Amino acid sequence: MIAEIICVGTELLLGDILNSNAQFLAKQLANLGIAHYYQTVVGDNPDRIKQVLAIATQRSQILIFTGGLGPTPDDLTVATIADFFDTPLIEIPEIIEDITKKFARRGRTMTASNRKQALIPQGANILPNPIGTAPGIIWQPVADVTIMTFPGVPTEMKSMWQETAIPYMQSQGWCDQTIYSRTLKFWGISESGLAEKVAPLLEMENPTVAPYANYGEVKLRISARAKSQELADQLIIPVEQEIRDIAGIDCYGMNDESLASVVGKLLLDRGETLAVAESCTGGGLGSMLTSIPGSSKYFYGGVIAYENQVKITLLDVSEQDLIAEGAVSHRVAKQMASGVVKKLGTNWGIGITGVAGPGGGTDTKPVGLVYIGIASSKDEVESFEYRFSHLRDRDWIRRVSISTALDLLRRKLQLSK
Amino acid sequence: MIAEIICVGTELLLGDILNSNAQFLAKQLANLGIAHYYQTVVGDNPDRIKQVLAIATQRSQILIFTGGLGPTPDDLTVATIADFFDTPLIEIPEIIEDITKKFARRGRTMTASNRKQALIPQGANILPNPIGTAPGIIWQPVADVTIMTFPGVPTEMKSMWQETAIPYMQSQGWCDQTIYSRTLKFWGISESGLAEKVAPLLEMENPTVAPYANYGEVKLRISARAKSQELADQLIIPVEQEIRDIAGIDCYGMNDESLASVVGKLLLDRGETLAVAESCTGGGLGSMLTSIPGSSKYFYGGVIAYENQVKITLLDVSEQDLIAEGAVSHRVAKQMASGVVKKLGTNWGIGITGVAGPGGGTDTKPVGLVYIGIASSKDEVESFEYRFSHLRDRDWIRRVSISTALDLLRRKLQLSK
Repeated sequence: MIAEIICVGTELLLGDILNSNAQFLAKQLANLGIAHYYQTVVGDNPDRIKQVLAIATQRSQILIFTGGLGPTPDDLTVATIADFFDTPLIEIPEIIEDITKKFARRGRTMTASNRKQALIPQGANILPNPIGTAPGIIWQPVADVTIMTFPGVPTEMKSMWQETAIPYMQSQGWCDQTIYSRTLKFWGISESGLAEKVAPLLEMENPTVAPYANYGEVKLRISARAKSQELADQLIIPVEQEIRDIAGIDCYGMNDESLASVVGKLLLDRGETLAVAESCTGGGLGSMLTSIPGSSKYFYGGVIAYENQVKITLLDVSEQDLIAEGAVSHRVAKQMASGVVKKLGTNWGIGITGVAGPGGGTDTKPVGLVYIGIASSKDEVESFEYRFSHLRDRDWIRRVSISTALDLLRRKLQLSK
Repeated sequence: MIAEIICVGTELLLGDILNSNAQFLAKQLANLGIAHYYQTVVGDNPDRIKQVLAIATQRSQILIFTGGLGPTPDDLTVATIADFFDTPLIEIPEIIEDITKKFARRGRTMTASNRKQALIPQGANILPNPIGTAPGIIWQPVADVTIMTFPGVPTEMKSMWQETAIPYMQSQGWCDQTIYSRTLKFWGISESGLAEKVAPLLEMENPTVAPYANYGEVKLRISARAKSQELADQLIIPVEQEIRDIAGIDCYGMNDESLASVVGKLLLDRGETLAVAESCTGGGLGSMLTSIPGSSKYFYGGVIAYENQVKITLLDVSEQDLIAEGAVSHRVAKQMASGVVKKLGTNWGIGITGVAGPGGGTDTKPVGLVYIGIASSKDEVESFEYRFSHLRDRDWIRRVSISTALDLLRRKLQLSK
């Protein structure tokens, strides 16, 4: 069985949005071992959608559509597919009921335009949408062609894919050999530095090892083609071990783990707690830590000390030091970290102060200069200076400062185990 | 002239990379006023690339290829295109020279595999690559078909596009009319609700009006085709005004404006200041506010009161109320907002407390229940209850809570102007 991804939406042709749906589906198909040779993007135009259908039905057996299932007049994917196969649309009472309920739950009434979302081609099965109002379809209009439709909204598309599409495809026996993979994650080493260290592994065929890098983080993806998870693991595990041995503490985790989740797990294991004091990151470190479900077990909170007076009032930073050394200094970073430990009564505290730009830089304190303090309840405190390139933008500097702070604490916790 | 984007690369079919090249080129074509109806992704496979060529040459006149220009054996875009048009490849001495120089500059010697990059179809023009080794081509193999090839590396593709492709297309008279657009942004109204209110406008041809929605935010993009910005504005402005009149305060801004930037501008205009007290959002509201350069002029900071004790210690929330009403309650949201106003001495304070899930929900306080308090230095405080669907994930609930909080303050500031 050969699949094809067809994304419908004029916003994709205008470049308004990035086609992340195509990437998600491509990855999923690779993991399921379903071959996939073409992806097409077409606008919300019935004639052109039909031309794409004419081509795709000749070369692929599973057509996966995303986009154009909404309630507005330019959403016409399902109606056009039905028309292509000369099939009437039928209003499904269960869908009307489901949409009505979803609106009621939000205290709203279903609008007339939403009725359209209850129309599906005669003979098609419903692909339920657990989140939004637009359901999809799974339909075999002719022999050897199966059509699945998904909304363009990524969260809805993904949950429908996981909950209904995958089980359906597995039940049809379409997913035979699979690509299994693990992604190792690194902080504190460059992509080229790591690639040189593991150079011979990058030449392997099964498993393959491929490096990626983004916002200072480096990843190595180990992918094996095999009939089962067990057989894939036999290929992956020795390579994983070799990479871990080479990288040492620079390798911080795997797959869905993040620096925040790894720090959380380390704190949880030790029964310790953390608080943060943030200036240039403005709450981003707290937000990252609390993105982890259950983080309330070890994260108490903190202070967003954006204005200098807040550093004095809530963190007991010395006014004299603020004047003499400036807010962006070793001394203030340390006092922020120590201050938040004392105020919140945690085992650990992190303080971040820096110049995120684009304004505010000076000759001695340029954009990209960041100090990170790490304090413990044992009255120990250290601070670290970073000089990120002034060519990096505000968002990059803030993001990398947050990851760097988490990594500093991670290393401290791992090395003092 | 109709263009078509064709991205070549097995890494796109495996979902290893996001197709940001297609988005860049799509946006560029829209800005240049060159129509573009299809995008195709195909792997590094000569037969399938030829099939794509057979289809694309039937429906488009400008074929823009990215990817497959590298030195490795799987890079075969140019050779396949030449083969499709029965044209021999010629080695170009100037390209060999250019590649040799680029290697020398990095202290390296050109490898044999790079020689391949100097082969271009007989009769094609070189599209120089100022950054990398792989040049592209601009070639008219038959009447009414022009082919341009670019490397897959985004930085190289972009610089070649800007420096050579755009001037070439302009010289050919392909870019006479341009699409100009404005995007209006809304909060507090659903996509379908807004679409119904502006229904007749969605049927227009020039300008067109198209709705989008994501994370609770709704957008309307007004796009006009015209010979100049001035002529486009004449088409866009009356439609924009009509939408603004219909939507009223639900329309919060335009183009690059965000709720955080609009709130910032309102505060700046009034010379007022803001502080935040965050529980379930864990610093995300502060992070959003400080993502705006210059936010230190009106944003003082705040308290991440994740643990209940922090609410008591740093925000003076009543311990009794925390026990009697629970942390997720009107009363606590109000006290958090008032508390941070008093502690930080700002004009305004926002407090957010809620159940972001996935755990922590109860029958009376389910996942998705969020209270937002807004306090002023005049001792006024209000709180608002939201019941987001329990089907939404932690990330969605946190993001939408942050936007909702910003929108509440925006409305207050706009209405009390």
